[in-house]
Amino acid sequence: MNGAQSLIRTLVDCGVEVCFANPGTSEMHFVAALDSVPEMRGVPALFEGVATGAADGYARIAGKPAATLLHLGPGLGNGLANLHNARRAAAPIVNVVGDHATYHAQYDAPLESDIDSLTGWLDGWTRRSGHPKDVGADAAAAVAAAQDAPGRIATLVLPADVSWGEGGETCAPIPPRVPHAVDSTTVQAIADVLRSGEPVALLIGGDACRAAGLRAASRIAEATGAKAFTETFPARIERGAGLPHVERLGYLAEQARYQLDGVRHLIVAGAKAPVSFFAYPGMPSELAPDGAQVHMLAAPGQHVAAALGEVAALVAADTEPVVQQAVRPDLPSGPLSPQNWVDVIGALLPEDAIVVDETNTSGVLLPAGTAGAPRHDVLTLTGGAIGFGMPVAVGAAIAAPQRPVINLEADGSAMYTISALWTQARENLDVTTVVLNNNAYAILRMELQRVGASGDGPRAKNLLDLGRPDLDFVKIAEGMGVPATRATTAEELAQQFRHAVAEPGPHLIDAAVPPLV
Amino acid sequence: MNGAQSLIRTLVDCGVEVCFANPGTSEMHFVAALDSVPEMRGVPALFEGVATGAADGYARIAGKPAATLLHLGPGLGNGLANLHNARRAAAPIVNVVGDHATYHAQYDAPLESDIDSLTGWLDGWTRRSGHPKDVGADAAAAVAAAQDAPGRIATLVLPADVSWGEGGETCAPIPPRVPHAVDSTTVQAIADVLRSGEPVALLIGGDACRAAGLRAASRIAEATGAKAFTETFPARIERGAGLPHVERLGYLAEQARYQLDGVRHLIVAGAKAPVSFFAYPGMPSELAPDGAQVHMLAAPGQHVAAALGEVAALVAADTEPVVQQAVRPDLPSGPLSPQNWVDVIGALLPEDAIVVDETNTSGVLLPAGTAGAPRHDVLTLTGGAIGFGMPVAVGAAIAAPQRPVINLEADGSAMYTISALWTQARENLDVTTVVLNNNAYAILRMELQRVGASGDGPRAKNLLDLGRPDLDFVKIAEGMGVPATRATTAEELAQQFRHAVAEPGPHLIDAAVPPLV
Repeated sequence: MNGAQSLIRTLVDCGVEVCFANPGTSEMHFVAALDSVPEMRGVPALFEGVATGAADGYARIAGKPAATLLHLGPGLGNGLANLHNARRAAAPIVNVVGDHATYHAQYDAPLESDIDSLTGWLDGWTRRSGHPKDVGADAAAAVAAAQDAPGRIATLVLPADVSWGEGGETCAPIPPRVPHAVDSTTVQAIADVLRSGEPVALLIGGDACRAAGLRAASRIAEATGAKAFTETFPARIERGAGLPHVERLGYLAEQARYQLDGVRHLIVAGAKAPVSFFAYPGMPSELAPDGAQVHMLAAPGQHVAAALGEVAALVAADTEPVVQQAVRPDLPSGPLSPQNWVDVIGALLPEDAIVVDETNTSGVLLPAGTAGAPRHDVLTLTGGAIGFGMPVAVGAAIAAPQRPVINLEADGSAMYTISALWTQARENLDVTTVVLNNNAYAILRMELQRVGASGDGPRAKNLLDLGRPDLDFVKIAEGMGVPATRATTAEELAQQFRHAVAEPGPHLIDAAVPPLV
Repeated sequence: MNGAQSLIRTLVDCGVEVCFANPGTSEMHFVAALDSVPEMRGVPALFEGVATGAADGYARIAGKPAATLLHLGPGLGNGLANLHNARRAAAPIVNVVGDHATYHAQYDAPLESDIDSLTGWLDGWTRRSGHPKDVGADAAAAVAAAQDAPGRIATLVLPADVSWGEGGETCAPIPPRVPHAVDSTTVQAIADVLRSGEPVALLIGGDACRAAGLRAASRIAEATGAKAFTETFPARIERGAGLPHVERLGYLAEQARYQLDGVRHLIVAGAKAPVSFFAYPGMPSELAPDGAQVHMLAAPGQHVAAALGEVAALVAADTEPVVQQAVRPDLPSGPLSPQNWVDVIGALLPEDAIVVDETNTSGVLLPAGTAGAPRHDVLTLTGGAIGFGMPVAVGAAIAAPQRPVINLEADGSAMYTISALWTQARENLDVTTVVLNNNAYAILRMELQRVGASGDGPRAKNLLDLGRPDLDFVKIAEGMGVPATRATTAEELAQQFRHAVAEPGPHLIDAAVPPLV
């Protein structure tokens, strides 16, 4: 057994069943070893950012890591942006980064680079395998490290000669660090804050954005009058009819400050104290009102939902959560608008959907439009590195082949990792992509105003305009084997969306939705 | 004058006239400032790897830096792979990386990351501007650092508040470190080696791959019997009728060893002692024959071509270079093949073309087919990070708007940075892209054999196959506004290539060239 074979065998034994791969020459023994371990599914990506984003989406839905296979420093470099998003999502991922043979590194061949700088940037777990006999143990350690609560990026650097060398040994799974419970003193203190009679807001994140946490938060809010919010960009939030509708804290600082206005105590659970996404001249970074006290119930690596449940037991023992009724928008008509496209999705969202939301400005009205739709998960852009949606949809669809995946995607963001469409076609994934095509980096047009930039002239606007020529996503998608249509009216969008969801395999709808502003 | 304005003003004063930009919110003041300094041309890119690759191509042709504008750590991350290639090309580039406001960094907002890890990976020059009044001086230092011989990546990190803050001051240009001459003792010693009567090979790189260096190398070879080669992947090599045809050292180690067989002395000038691109089981990394002595005439930061000229004056005073005659292949006919597509290009290559070569396996026969074509420059994949061709073509076309740019592009590599086509359309660049579409990572199929990987089964092959579905580059290109056609025969390729070169603006030809092996 060579190093590569022991690696894949161990990964499979540790529960890693999928590898999103963009290999090169230094990874050929890993690729060859796939035939000796048929339990590992290799999924090809045409760009490393697709592989890493897919691993993020897989982890958010499967709750366990997939592997990636990346080619030396530049390959890892191409995957960094979506690993950044995954890190912010606390998504467990095991990267396998091939490197030159140990004895070859000294020669500074063209692809040589300081891989450690890049793994350092990821702020996760890293190891470099030094001998074929160690690879199995290193792999098991990587899987455990990735799953250490709340989840992180583990990177195993695999030199080519360690991969091809004989003497590989498999290793049994290593238990990861589990979330630890919140102590009763903290629970009691938070209950006291909630009973203080002063204005309180509750900000929940991480696993508290799933059903149990949402129910506890709703009970607390209902019983105590506290306002409840989820973090602005949850890795995964459960929503829809039958679940409490907990509002997300706004992306715009102005909006978040409005939501938190008057609050004297801010309780955070599985989230950090809220800060502005960007800094703006003359505006503070912190979003909690001046003088408000921040109380930490549970950090992301703790049992956040359980702690919320304990708090609810103290302050809301007899209170039921307020759940969202099943209410859908009526199907609209007329030319597409920032409002009516959302109503189409809200009206037609299938049961048990996974919604990958990279709508940026076009999606401002989306949460309201889909609140009463059938229960669904929403995956959001946790790290702000755009180009996450299409790859994350790949990973989500592979993690949950029986669920419809709906990727709502801004035009500018779509172009970063557009080749994910090809992987969707190759793997015949049930992903329906709706591109909100407004021919602009609309969010930057807005931000150009908000940062108070002077000289808002034609040369600045030229850089924020995606027209001249307009992007034709129908042709782009068809060029990668994904059937696609163009919608300019709400009726067309509805008809095309129904068809896309009903027919197996990937589809794309290029929706001519004008900019919000 | 704010920091951003002083930055752009200083860049322009230092000769930086183009900025390849993919901005975000933290760069909005830079974007706004473009309207106050109209001498700076902002070129939008839909992905950072397009911006950095374009800056590489620009530098190789213009011989001076362009700027890039990138959005925080993830934006720089997306640009790294093509910066790696640029670093290997010694291409001068000035990256401007926007960052959060200085006071905002402590809050660990979603896009916060350790940018210094990434700039460290680039192994170039880095500075972080701390105050608007320093930005001009920092910019001038960055331009000088980028142009320090032989050229490198300079990165200026610009916090948002330093960009928007008032008090900016421009700075006069700072002279870069110029190449230093090779001392006469070294020149004499190299001449002695060439006169030793023992078998000698000469390996030239860097600026020696331009006309003067090639002529000197040819004279030396002709007078002394030394074999002359250029490095395997020159940043820019001049070729064609009227210039000496100096063979490139082969990519495959077997090929390079054959070329260097029997050599007792290897003289390197502007290049490193040759090493295998990858390591292979049981094969040495060094390509020079056992026992051969390596002699360094000039390092890349020296006046390499001048030193070669001095050597030629000593050993080949009365010898003329052997120049390539103007000979083109006949126009072939029939279904496209690995040979005949090259003959079409050789037969029709326009005068004074810039050829951006990312053909990988499909281009093995290209150097021979174009040797006698009109004089042209070839830009190659110096760092091995694929996805370089389309962006580099953008930059080359902007640096030399009067010259035709021919991008010969492998299908797999094309997909990494495919959105460069949109920038070609937006800027109406005279780029003709020929995609060699063999529906495979053909080079990896070959490498899978060469590394001796066992278990070459269907699951391995699945990851190296670009079919199911086949990529349709005609649709993909049209979707980004680039007119495109499909060629399956040599006649079609010839007709379409003629048309593409003759008509202004970008064109793409999807050429169905079967794999070499």
